[in-house]
Amino acid sequence: MHSDLARIVGEQYVLKDAPAEWTQDASIAMGLRGHADAVVLPATADEVASVVAWCYERGVAIVPRGGGTGYSGGATPAPVPGTAGPEGTVVVALDRLDRIRSFDPGLWRIEVEAGVTTQTIARRARENGLMFPVDPGAAEQSQIGGNIATNAGGPHCFKYGVTRAWVTGVEAVLAPGELVSVGGPTRKDVAGYDLVGLLTGSEGTLGIVTAAWLRLLPAPPHPAVPVACAYPTVDAGCAAIEAVMASGVVPATIEYLDAGALAAAAASFPGGLPADAQFLVVCEADSGQADVAELLEALGPGARRHEPRELWRWRDGVGIAVTAVQGGKLSEDIGVPLDRLAEGITGTVEIGLRHGLDACSWGHAGDGNLHSTFLLRPGDREQLAKAEVAVEELFDLAVSLGGTISGEHGLGWLKRGQLHKQWAPAAVRAHRAVKDALDPAGLFNPGKKTA
Amino acid sequence: MHSDLARIVGEQYVLKDAPAEWTQDASIAMGLRGHADAVVLPATADEVASVVAWCYERGVAIVPRGGGTGYSGGATPAPVPGTAGPEGTVVVALDRLDRIRSFDPGLWRIEVEAGVTTQTIARRARENGLMFPVDPGAAEQSQIGGNIATNAGGPHCFKYGVTRAWVTGVEAVLAPGELVSVGGPTRKDVAGYDLVGLLTGSEGTLGIVTAAWLRLLPAPPHPAVPVACAYPTVDAGCAAIEAVMASGVVPATIEYLDAGALAAAAASFPGGLPADAQFLVVCEADSGQADVAELLEALGPGARRHEPRELWRWRDGVGIAVTAVQGGKLSEDIGVPLDRLAEGITGTVEIGLRHGLDACSWGHAGDGNLHSTFLLRPGDREQLAKAEVAVEELFDLAVSLGGTISGEHGLGWLKRGQLHKQWAPAAVRAHRAVKDALDPAGLFNPGKKTA
Repeated sequence: MHSDLARIVGEQYVLKDAPAEWTQDASIAMGLRGHADAVVLPATADEVASVVAWCYERGVAIVPRGGGTGYSGGATPAPVPGTAGPEGTVVVALDRLDRIRSFDPGLWRIEVEAGVTTQTIARRARENGLMFPVDPGAAEQSQIGGNIATNAGGPHCFKYGVTRAWVTGVEAVLAPGELVSVGGPTRKDVAGYDLVGLLTGSEGTLGIVTAAWLRLLPAPPHPAVPVACAYPTVDAGCAAIEAVMASGVVPATIEYLDAGALAAAAASFPGGLPADAQFLVVCEADSGQADVAELLEALGPGARRHEPRELWRWRDGVGIAVTAVQGGKLSEDIGVPLDRLAEGITGTVEIGLRHGLDACSWGHAGDGNLHSTFLLRPGDREQLAKAEVAVEELFDLAVSLGGTISGEHGLGWLKRGQLHKQWAPAAVRAHRAVKDALDPAGLFNPGKKTA
Repeated sequence: MHSDLARIVGEQYVLKDAPAEWTQDASIAMGLRGHADAVVLPATADEVASVVAWCYERGVAIVPRGGGTGYSGGATPAPVPGTAGPEGTVVVALDRLDRIRSFDPGLWRIEVEAGVTTQTIARRARENGLMFPVDPGAAEQSQIGGNIATNAGGPHCFKYGVTRAWVTGVEAVLAPGELVSVGGPTRKDVAGYDLVGLLTGSEGTLGIVTAAWLRLLPAPPHPAVPVACAYPTVDAGCAAIEAVMASGVVPATIEYLDAGALAAAAASFPGGLPADAQFLVVCEADSGQADVAELLEALGPGARRHEPRELWRWRDGVGIAVTAVQGGKLSEDIGVPLDRLAEGITGTVEIGLRHGLDACSWGHAGDGNLHSTFLLRPGDREQLAKAEVAVEELFDLAVSLGGTISGEHGLGWLKRGQLHKQWAPAAVRAHRAVKDALDPAGLFNPGKKTA
């Protein structure tokens, strides 16, 4: 295996002993460790195609890997015995495909290879008066290929849409190892089935994205102004969110923290919070001072403006603050219709209570996307077992509210086999039929995103 | 057949002799006439599922039909002998699925059945301070189910995105006759493969959309102000378009007309046009007077504001004005990257010249979407034959410019079998594999959107 792969990518780019940092991702926080027979770091899309062809011919599983910042174990190869390919597993890391192939600021577009980081794209856009609005977090590590593979979201997707909205074309390696391009710099294209959309969010189970054409947008002419307001109850906070929706303003983002998340993160909130704060709503307008004033009015007395950098630095630290409470957590990303948000939030806490677990949530309120979280002591197996049952109930809750078991992280490994809770059998069959059609040997990221 | 179908939908909703108005669509302008054994008008999604199940069991082809406003013959059943299902063809018209199932203005969303017209949705939104920005034209006839099936576009998709961007969920009947829902009122969902996206633009070849959840947006706070400017050459006009892109404004739309289209439509242009006008650019800003001023400056001397209703009524009549020149036309909808727009425009005219045909184009400049058109005298078979060759060259041109053979109309019947010009063999295989996976018997809209 190693000598064959070395002939394709070069000796030093085959990591024979598959070092741990390449066989785990952000799901290591839940203890998920993988195994692979080799890690390869191709330099070009053609090398990726050759590696896939080599693997596909031999029944070797292929696990594409971006920045490894995903929470669902999508980039963790073969986490349990029996889930590897019949002839082993190769991790294909896209790090070296890090070129910006073309950038046309005047035409609002950029063509990037899969390994370019989200931050690099956002920075290049910003330096040229443009915006790449997708902000899934961990922007320094996360790569656009992984963003596309998970159809990544983030706070500002409320106004600007998720990754799919910004991809006009992908270059990808499909089974059994063929490099194709669908879409491109053209902004509209309805000739073929939407393979761009199908690959976006497919979590590496249908092929490997090697490059993409992205749309960009002129930067908003007005500075982004975050405004925040605390509330004494979930209901009061959710009523404020609906008032924001009814204000006529299109906020760039509508975020929330519930009481448990606030308890973990309130101490560092810029300017402090009232003692009775049990719920926080953060909005942002990038459409002028009149809209900022509308948001302040919709949020009600106590709402105030914040300095963007300060506020978002604090917001970025919420997940870490919640983890720090007990040292660990099991965190999900269910989505619900906006009018069921309060039920999702209180339901999360109730599920925790039933299992003797502290629970909380925060997230992208405007999109009804909750980071529902159970707090855990590291190494406490009994507690983890309880949390795993609680998560099943959480998924049932999301579905019963008319929502989804995954709003932005994807199924990956940790939510494999759960789609049937959400989709009727005929839709699940369609999901599986698509997988079988594009990956007949089942070698792309086996065990992930299964229905 | 008729008595079985009558048991499902009721006697009066099976049209036995398949009247001509149900077996042709807007492609009748190119002489495309279809044949069907029956036309059924189910009243509910369950009736649609029962009809499909009946057909699928018996090898009868199913042709879904919305408003019949498509230009590619997508709703024209079995236009030539041998293209029907092995046991005949049933047209399934969605007209009676015309209910708005739910409308939550405060939550920016609406759930509509497939037969609701585009205009009805836009009007209901507008009456409630919201906007449904997709405007593919023929809004009184065109139905949302057909808009979804073709992933319809329109002038304002430049700023607001095509139909796909507004659909958060679809209810559809899949083979062999099962009603499923994927997505819904939840705004973000990455649990399964993107079946919403796959059905959107699938032109009825993978299933029948029976209902959809749509996102809406608060109406822009500023009135939409169209501005227009004439130029003496294609290059000058395209330079102005690039100046608009570089202005920092995000226009709601950027449209153009070339010399031939202007010759047909200039007489009725509001306020008239300079005698040397050979190219027209129309933009619109709905983001305030400062942006209108920026657009006027970017378009250059001669640019002026227009009254929106007057300007758009004129713009809506361009296609008809072009048809009126010789009585007929063969019109396509190629898309190209924006920096190749001038080549697409001049190339269209050059192709016409080579074949002795008057040619012109107009369309959605910002999206690089050209309605490239060859003028025809009705009934002139020799001229039509020339135009059919010219269209093939037009597709080659679009592909050579890095574009697409269809920016918004879809392949339908008229562009069937052309995708291979644009996509590499492996991508074409993926397109076909998806079709075979979801419609194994090949009964959904046979002969349409083939690669």
